[in-house]
Amino acid sequence: MYMDIDEYWKNRGTVRCFSDKPVDMNLIYDLLDKAAHAPTTGNMQLYSVIVTSDSENKKRLLPAHFSQPAAVGAPLLLTFCADYNRFTKWCLDRKAEPCYGNFQSFIAALLDTALLAQQFNTLAELSGLGCCYLGTTTYNAPQIAEILKLPELTVPVITLAVGYPACQVKPADRIPVKGFIHNEEYRPVTSGEIDEFYIPKENLEENIGFVRENGKETLAQVFTDIRYNKKNNEYFSKIFEDFIRHQGFKS
Amino acid sequence: MYMDIDEYWKNRGTVRCFSDKPVDMNLIYDLLDKAAHAPTTGNMQLYSVIVTSDSENKKRLLPAHFSQPAAVGAPLLLTFCADYNRFTKWCLDRKAEPCYGNFQSFIAALLDTALLAQQFNTLAELSGLGCCYLGTTTYNAPQIAEILKLPELTVPVITLAVGYPACQVKPADRIPVKGFIHNEEYRPVTSGEIDEFYIPKENLEENIGFVRENGKETLAQVFTDIRYNKKNNEYFSKIFEDFIRHQGFKS
Repeated sequence: MYMDIDEYWKNRGTVRCFSDKPVDMNLIYDLLDKAAHAPTTGNMQLYSVIVTSDSENKKRLLPAHFSQPAAVGAPLLLTFCADYNRFTKWCLDRKAEPCYGNFQSFIAALLDTALLAQQFNTLAELSGLGCCYLGTTTYNAPQIAEILKLPELTVPVITLAVGYPACQVKPADRIPVKGFIHNEEYRPVTSGEIDEFYIPKENLEENIGFVRENGKETLAQVFTDIRYNKKNNEYFSKIFEDFIRHQGFKS
Repeated sequence: MYMDIDEYWKNRGTVRCFSDKPVDMNLIYDLLDKAAHAPTTGNMQLYSVIVTSDSENKKRLLPAHFSQPAAVGAPLLLTFCADYNRFTKWCLDRKAEPCYGNFQSFIAALLDTALLAQQFNTLAELSGLGCCYLGTTTYNAPQIAEILKLPELTVPVITLAVGYPACQVKPADRIPVKGFIHNEEYRPVTSGEIDEFYIPKENLEENIGFVRENGKETLAQVFTDIRYNKKNNEYFSKIFEDFIRHQGFKS
C-alpha cells in the first residue's frame, strides 16, 4: 500500500471501509509484539488489548460504538485498555504493596495505552492493513467493560477497527505545522492566524457539504452543535469520570 | 542508526545521554509536520508543542523534571500539550459556541497529544535522533504551565528530551505478547503466568542490581516503595486533577 516509507507519513489516512479478506491472527500478534517496544512508563506496560474477531461478540460491541460503519464493516475490533490490574497482581505476588488506585496511575496507563495503539496503527498500516480509531470508547466505557469482562484497574480507552482496505486511502488535511508549534513559550493564536490556518480547511468541498447538509452557517457550528456538542460532552464526561473511579482509580 | 525499518521496531530504545551535536530546527519542524498526519479526534488536532532550545529557558524547566539527567543533557525539550484553546478560538471567531471545558474533551485532547508525540518519537528515532519521555510532566504540570505561559484549555502532558545519542541504544525487555493480549474477553492473569512473564525480567542483572542497591526484597518493591510509591502518586494525583480543572476542563 505504501511502497516507500518516506511517502507513508504524510499520505496515510484512516480507513473506514474494509474488504472481506480475513486478517491472519499471527500478523496481529506479530504487530502487537513489535508495537510493545514503544516507550512505556517505567517499563511497566500498563495496557491490555482485547481482540474481538468472533462475529457474535462483535455484534454485542457494536451498539457501544453507535454502530458506526467503520466498526460494523471491520473484521476485527481491538480494544486497548489502560491496565494496572496485571502489574498489581505481580506486586501482590511479590510481597509488595501496590498503590495504583489513583488518578496519576490512570493517566500513566492511559498514555502507555495510547503509545501502544499508535505504534500498532503505524505498523498495521505499513503492513497493508487499514485502521480506524473509534472515538466512542471513552463514551461507552461501562458497556464495553461489561461485554469484555474487564476487571478492576482496567479501563477501555481506544478501539481500533482493523481490516484490509476496500477503498482508496485518502490523506487528511491538517493545519500547517506553525499552527501548533510554539518557540520557547506559548503564543495564543490571533484571529488573523485562525483565518490563515482554518480557511483552507473550511473551503474543502467535503466541509462545505457538511455545513450545507447540517443547515449550519459555519463549519465550527457543525462541531459545536452536532459532532462534539455540549450536551453529549457533559453527559459522557460524568459517565467516564464515574467509571474510572468505579474501576478503582479513586484518589 | 536503524539501517532497516524492519529491524527498527524491536530494537529501538530510549536514549538518556546526548551528544553536543546541535539539532537543526528545520528537522524538528519537518518531523512534526509529518507526525501531525497521525490520527486525531475529528481532525481537530487538539495539541500544541512548545520547543525549548534556549539554555536559560531549559534551566528554568529542569526543576519541574526533577533535573533528571536525560532532561539536563538534552539539547531540546519538547513539551506536548493537550490543547482545546486554539480550536475554541476558531469556534468563537466563527459564530459557534464552544463547549469543551469538560473531562471528555480533556481526554480527547490528551489522546490526540499522545498519538502526535508517539508518531514524532518514531520519526525522530528513524532520523537518527534519540528521545526520552519524561514522566514528570503530569506531576509538575502547574510549574511547567507557568514557565511556558500556557493559557486556558491547555495542559502539558508529555515532554520529550531530544538530541543525538551519545551512547548505544539498548532495546528494553518486554513481557511476551500473550501477557497483554486477550481473545474475545479479558482473562485475569494467574500466578503461574505472572511467574512466566516476570521472572525473566526479575533475573536481568540490571534489575537484580536495583533490588540490591535499594535494600529491597523484590523488584516489585522497588516500584511500590520507591519509583511509583503511594505518597507521591496520591500527592501528584490531587495536584494534576486540580490543575486540569484550573485550566478550564471543569465538568
